[in-house]
Amino acid sequence: MRIAMQCWYVAGFASDVAADKPLARTICGAPILLYRDRDGCLTAIPDACPHRSAPLSAGRFHQGTVHCRYHGLAFGRDGVCVHNPHGPITASLHAKAWPVAERHGLIWVWPGSPDRADPALIPDLSFIDRVHPHGRFTGYLPTAANYQLCTDNILDLSHTDYLHPDTLGGGSITRARPQVSVQGDVLTIRWENRNEIAPPAFDRELAVHGECSNTVHEVVWSAPAIMKLTVTVESCVQGGGRISQTTMHVMTPETDVTTHYFVLSTRDFRTADAGFNAAISQFVNTIFATEDKPMLEAQQARMGTSDLWATNPVILPIDSGAIQVRRILDRLIAAEAAAG
Amino acid sequence: MRIAMQCWYVAGFASDVAADKPLARTICGAPILLYRDRDGCLTAIPDACPHRSAPLSAGRFHQGTVHCRYHGLAFGRDGVCVHNPHGPITASLHAKAWPVAERHGLIWVWPGSPDRADPALIPDLSFIDRVHPHGRFTGYLPTAANYQLCTDNILDLSHTDYLHPDTLGGGSITRARPQVSVQGDVLTIRWENRNEIAPPAFDRELAVHGECSNTVHEVVWSAPAIMKLTVTVESCVQGGGRISQTTMHVMTPETDVTTHYFVLSTRDFRTADAGFNAAISQFVNTIFATEDKPMLEAQQARMGTSDLWATNPVILPIDSGAIQVRRILDRLIAAEAAAG
Amino acid sequence: MRIAMQCWYVAGFASDVAADKPLARTICGAPILLYRDRDGCLTAIPDACPHRSAPLSAGRFHQGTVHCRYHGLAFGRDGVCVHNPHGPITASLHAKAWPVAERHGLIWVWPGSPDRADPALIPDLSFIDRVHPHGRFTGYLPTAANYQLCTDNILDLSHTDYLHPDTLGGGSITRARPQVSVQGDVLTIRWENRNEIAPPAFDRELAVHGECSNTVHEVVWSAPAIMKLTVTVESCVQGGGRISQTTMHVMTPETDVTTHYFVLSTRDFRTADAGFNAAISQFVNTIFATEDKPMLEAQQARMGTSDLWATNPVILPIDSGAIQVRRILDRLIAAEAAAG
Repeated sequence: MRIAMQCWYVAGFASDVAADKPLARTICGAPILLYRDRDGCLTAIPDACPHRSAPLSAGRFHQGTVHCRYHGLAFGRDGVCVHNPHGPITASLHAKAWPVAERHGLIWVWPGSPDRADPALIPDLSFIDRVHPHGRFTGYLPTAANYQLCTDNILDLSHTDYLHPDTLGGGSITRARPQVSVQGDVLTIRWENRNEIAPPAFDRELAVHGECSNTVHEVVWSAPAIMKLTVTVESCVQGGGRISQTTMHVMTPETDVTTHYFVLSTRDFRTADAGFNAAISQFVNTIFATEDKPMLEAQQARMGTSDLWATNPVILPIDSGAIQVRRILDRLIAAEAAAG
Repeated sequence: MRIAMQCWYVAGFASDVAADKPLARTICGAPILLYRDRDGCLTAIPDACPHRSAPLSAGRFHQGTVHCRYHGLAFGRDGVCVHNPHGPITASLHAKAWPVAERHGLIWVWPGSPDRADPALIPDLSFIDRVHPHGRFTGYLPTAANYQLCTDNILDLSHTDYLHPDTLGGGSITRARPQVSVQGDVLTIRWENRNEIAPPAFDRELAVHGECSNTVHEVVWSAPAIMKLTVTVESCVQGGGRISQTTMHVMTPETDVTTHYFVLSTRDFRTADAGFNAAISQFVNTIFATEDKPMLEAQQARMGTSDLWATNPVILPIDSGAIQVRRILDRLIAAEAAAG
Repeated sequence: MRIAMQCWYVAGFASDVAADKPLARTICGAPILLYRDRDGCLTAIPDACPHRSAPLSAGRFHQGTVHCRYHGLAFGRDGVCVHNPHGPITASLHAKAWPVAERHGLIWVWPGSPDRADPALIPDLSFIDRVHPHGRFTGYLPTAANYQLCTDNILDLSHTDYLHPDTLGGGSITRARPQVSVQGDVLTIRWENRNEIAPPAFDRELAVHGECSNTVHEVVWSAPAIMKLTVTVESCVQGGGRISQTTMHVMTPETDVTTHYFVLSTRDFRTADAGFNAAISQFVNTIFATEDKPMLEAQQARMGTSDLWATNPVILPIDSGAIQVRRILDRLIAAEAAAG
């Protein structure tokens, strides 16, 4: 796998792991086990006993300790071996824990050098925490495509006009043309539409429907594959209203050709309406699951490789953001390699 | 894949593709899409958008044009890009069309250099068109075996005595011994039986059953894998009659170890009997599907390679035709390589 | 595959092959066919016709002869070609038979040089034949793990304390610590427990339950993967009784990562009780199938390789027997390579 390693990756939602509910998941090609110790703190270790590779996820979990079901070695906080029934506990018995953090309802893991894992590098997603619980929802989409294809999908929103023509798109984003700007390792793309009817899924949330609006789609990408997509729609009609939705699209490589796709969506309208929240959550997640995921997987299947360039793709103006992001990643990966 | 490329291959039946019914099929290792333009003419292009490899077969088809469902590029006759919503149409956006032709109810494609694709090279199968529709039937058998194993099966009809002992064989073909002759790149094999009871499936179509006949099986092979098998049975009994059946067996490589096996069968008896035609079609296709296909697939599975010679096979006199055909193909492939 | 070839391997139970019931099975990576000739003697040949690799297991079996269903070649005792409908029988038509022997209810095959296949090298398991039929049972467990992992499982019985804590283990074997001794190419491991309650599955067979016993587990390993496990439990209580169970655990590589796991268990108690025998057979085989097999397969999946050392395992004292066995096997394999 060709990925940046000195990065925080999202491994799951905080709620995926409870005291009695560990989580086994392959992250960046490595099968890891996430569990909580007696204090509820997370530990991330390889899901293979250091002794004989037995999957620890098949073990017994008791008070924050995992007991290997094959020969009884037990591991506690940070993967420290706390019990060896067959002899002394030596340093080689400790599982090599990955740095792990819990922030904004997400579990973040760091596959690179532990001494470089600075929690301050975790992107600030605190805006999520400030939204009423009924004004936000999440989604998880395991997708059989390379994570960069999943990233490209968000960096080129013109796809909504063709893949989601009756809901998230409809033609306006294609007309808008993307404006790309880069600041350091952060890339921003904006699509601005003035005096056009907003895409159907947004138009119907305004106070006045079927009239012109000013719409801005903005995607802010940061490494390795964390995207904040904000859609703002302001009706051109008096009293038509203004709505905004901000959705995190986070891609974590599972393997070279599979991705954990995490969604966290917030909005500034009907934020206290539990029924509406459930409905829009199902609506959006269904679009992603039945339209984006099959397309990404079919694309990956057709490519037959995780290297986009090997397919000799024709480049269009809409690819500008995606290509610059690939260059930034290439530079980060090269820098890691140079740093040894 | 080691195949001849400067050849016409059958991609399907003409009826497989209609105005609103495209066909996605892998031919010679390449996923291609077949569709009809507004005039009903066929186009064959890679089933992957030149932009991002999205499968065009998942696109929208409208009046002879296919619209990619991912970013809206559209392709018309001969794969020409007729719409790019994101900028000008450039030559790089045209899909690389394969030469395609429709002849004798079959779709023929040419995977090699387009400038060498001469429709005059398509074998003349016009005898099929001259048979009453109730005097012919077709079959399609996707088979998980290398196409040359499928060819070998027809080039050595002694197998009918053991694989189809109660229907197409029974022992006589083994006794006949094959007579092989080669003219240019066309190979002919004949098995002649005099004064023997014909194989059960033929004997029962004579006016007098269970009596001696003179039977000739003849296979004419032409490159790459097109075989015309004619069985003629003439009763030795006065009034016993004479029947003849001619069946095309056409093998198109899908991948190195899978084959599209097409069957087109005609006969000169009961040619206007729709009920009999349906019955014999089911009878023959069932034999192929339940006896030949499983054997070919088991053989391929046991071989574990698409290279027959790697299995160090014992050679028998019955292999004579198959081996000479493999030599002709080897020579054609070598000539293509030499021609660059 | 890295295995010893100049060895007898168990291919199945004698009862798996009858006059009209051949057995196709992959042994040491090679698909072979086992069948009985008219005298009931076993033949083992490749399950692929020398002519065209058609699987002979799909052939017709008649009076000790197998007739290939593709072109009619027939093979009798020792794989000798007894019928060629297409010409003379030549030496190249004989199938290359593997040495095969039937002993103690098992079929033994020798994948190495036939001239070195001495039946005297088959381990003496005649003790099985001397046990009343109701005092013994068998088991067969196809397991998706390298055969050495399956061997390791028996050579380190401490696993019973964690994988089978309520039946075959419970903690005592961990406390016993293994005593390993090697004589030539035979390795013996003993675990002795004095004045402890025997594992539940054994304690309940004593005359007095829940009281202290002296228990010995002994495993005798011989190449390539034949293990005799004897458990002897003697109650410390007057009249508590003494029971013993001897179980052969025999591992035959199917492929590099799959194993034919054969079990033959005998005991010296309730040996004439058919109902009890059926119950204990189901009890033991269920433990192996639902606890050992899944663990071995999960371990293999996590390892992702058949080479234990590539996983850089931490070594514990309990691995002593397994590691010495791996060394003996490495030595045998190296000696075979040196002998050419």
